Amino acid sequence: MTRRVEFNETDLAGIVHFANFFRYMESVEHAFLRSLGHSVVMPGLQPPIGFPRVHASCDFRRPLRFEDVMELHLLVAEIRPRSLAYQIRIRRLEPGPTEEIGTGRLVVVCVSKNPDGRMEATAIPESLGRQLEVAPAELLALPAR
Amino acid sequence: MTRRVEFNETDLAGIVHFANFFRYMESVEHAFLRSLGHSVVMPGLQPPIGFPRVHASCDFRRPLRFEDVMELHLLVAEIRPRSLAYQIRIRRLEPGPTEEIGTGRLVVVCVSKNPDGRMEATAIPESLGRQLEVAPAELLALPAR
Amino acid sequence: MTRRVEFNETDLAGIVHFANFFRYMESVEHAFLRSLGHSVVMPGLQPPIGFPRVHASCDFRRPLRFEDVMELHLLVAEIRPRSLAYQIRIRRLEPGPTEEIGTGRLVVVCVSKNPDGRMEATAIPESLGRQLEVAPAELLALPAR
Amino acid sequence: MTRRVEFNETDLAGIVHFANFFRYMESVEHAFLRSLGHSVVMPGLQPPIGFPRVHASCDFRRPLRFEDVMELHLLVAEIRPRSLAYQIRIRRLEPGPTEEIGTGRLVVVCVSKNPDGRMEATAIPESLGRQLEVAPAELLALPAR
Repeated sequence: MTRRVEFNETDLAGIVHFANFFRYMESVEHAFLRSLGHSVVMPGLQPPIGFPRVHASCDFRRPLRFEDVMELHLLVAEIRPRSLAYQIRIRRLEPGPTEEIGTGRLVVVCVSKNPDGRMEATAIPESLGRQLEVAPAELLALPAR
Repeated sequence: MTRRVEFNETDLAGIVHFANFFRYMESVEHAFLRSLGHSVVMPGLQPPIGFPRVHASCDFRRPLRFEDVMELHLLVAEIRPRSLAYQIRIRRLEPGPTEEIGTGRLVVVCVSKNPDGRMEATAIPESLGRQLEVAPAELLALPAR
Repeated sequence: MTRRVEFNETDLAGIVHFANFFRYMESVEHAFLRSLGHSVVMPGLQPPIGFPRVHASCDFRRPLRFEDVMELHLLVAEIRPRSLAYQIRIRRLEPGPTEEIGTGRLVVVCVSKNPDGRMEATAIPESLGRQLEVAPAELLALPAR
Repeated sequence: MTRRVEFNETDLAGIVHFANFFRYMESVEHAFLRSLGHSVVMPGLQPPIGFPRVHASCDFRRPLRFEDVMELHLLVAEIRPRSLAYQIRIRRLEPGPTEEIGTGRLVVVCVSKNPDGRMEATAIPESLGRQLEVAPAELLALPAR
């Protein structure tokens, strides 16, 4: 997906505040699930499940500025019975030329909510799991800095 | 209450992004409720109630900058059976001298959640209502600009 | 413009946090300026100008939820030599049927930055001013609640 | 430092949105610099310097909820001529008992702004550098999960 940097995402250094990269990463994760016909909120399942994060990281190579247009690529980096790892690449498209901005990683765990409100790790729903495939290693390898 | 401007609350203009004033206003509303022994989330009540906003506004006189210390004053402006209006004054304390930064208004409605999940306006709980009093008119009158 | 509610824009009440409506309002303001060939950041002008807010308000009729698609309409409500007022209407498009969500107002002042860093109100640039027109009164009239 | 979870920091899952942990981490970084008499914004230096992030990560063990009180501990993990690494531990203090919530890491680079506006890595100012010391290894070692 592509998105344009909004004014409120910048800080006084004139660049996108780093915490917003994690929002960008989440937005492409959710767009990915929607593209498969799912939502990160799956109220139809009993018990309802969700995908809280157990790890999030980002390496920043270049800053993004107001009104820049970025492209977000999501790659499935790892599939486990109850968790998934995503790699997210961020590139600036406009103003050109296209440049690598940063690379992030999210590890999410599939949890269900017990009747007492506590969350417990549970298997990724079969309907989602059978649509997922780990990206080829050569795509997951990060470009030399 | 007082609070200090955080880096992530600024924007590329070098001042606090205006949307964050509404977060500041909400934080003093919640501190006010806590000071009365309540929380905006009242899970103990059956049905559970909440206070969604039906109106929010702010007039901005001067900007706030990174690491400025502000003082937030909350005044109860209006009490109705199912809604409350708050006036919030924001002053900069540091760096001095103290200056008026802005004045906001929140109108919140007391709602309960029906078993079907829909929210419905309901009476403010007696335990909260009897602690509230409208501020004197001379305090609520805004200073001439 | 249209946009879809993101997960990070919701709060524990399960709806969009009200402060985010002000971000939505700003995003359509900036899209409006872009549609006219301008940017809220006009570094080409000497001295550089900007549009800080002196007033922002929103009336909320219905909540927005995760992944809802909204439509944002911006109307020019008032044009003064050094300030502009915008009215912004927010409607939910998905899931249907289309519903009024809320209406906001932003009053922005055109300022230039003096060499000493202080901001001073200044005339709206001619290149922008001649493209603006106040919306018809019947469009600006709010629908009866 | 300690801070209390605000309503706007939660999401529809009823817990603090993970991107806000990076704001928490930054707030303790800035409080640390203030405690040494510095600010992340050092306009007094010529050329002005700043500390953009090149890496940020967080491992999440338990969720934080509305009005929880957390304690943030910052440890200096690494000192290099032009960059610093911080480890940040987050614990919930209230409601008790005290629990480990998560651990983050920030790597920041000291940059100066060239006259043409480009940022360039530069040596950490001597006045800051001589106040810093890497935390003992036994403190930096993470508790077994």
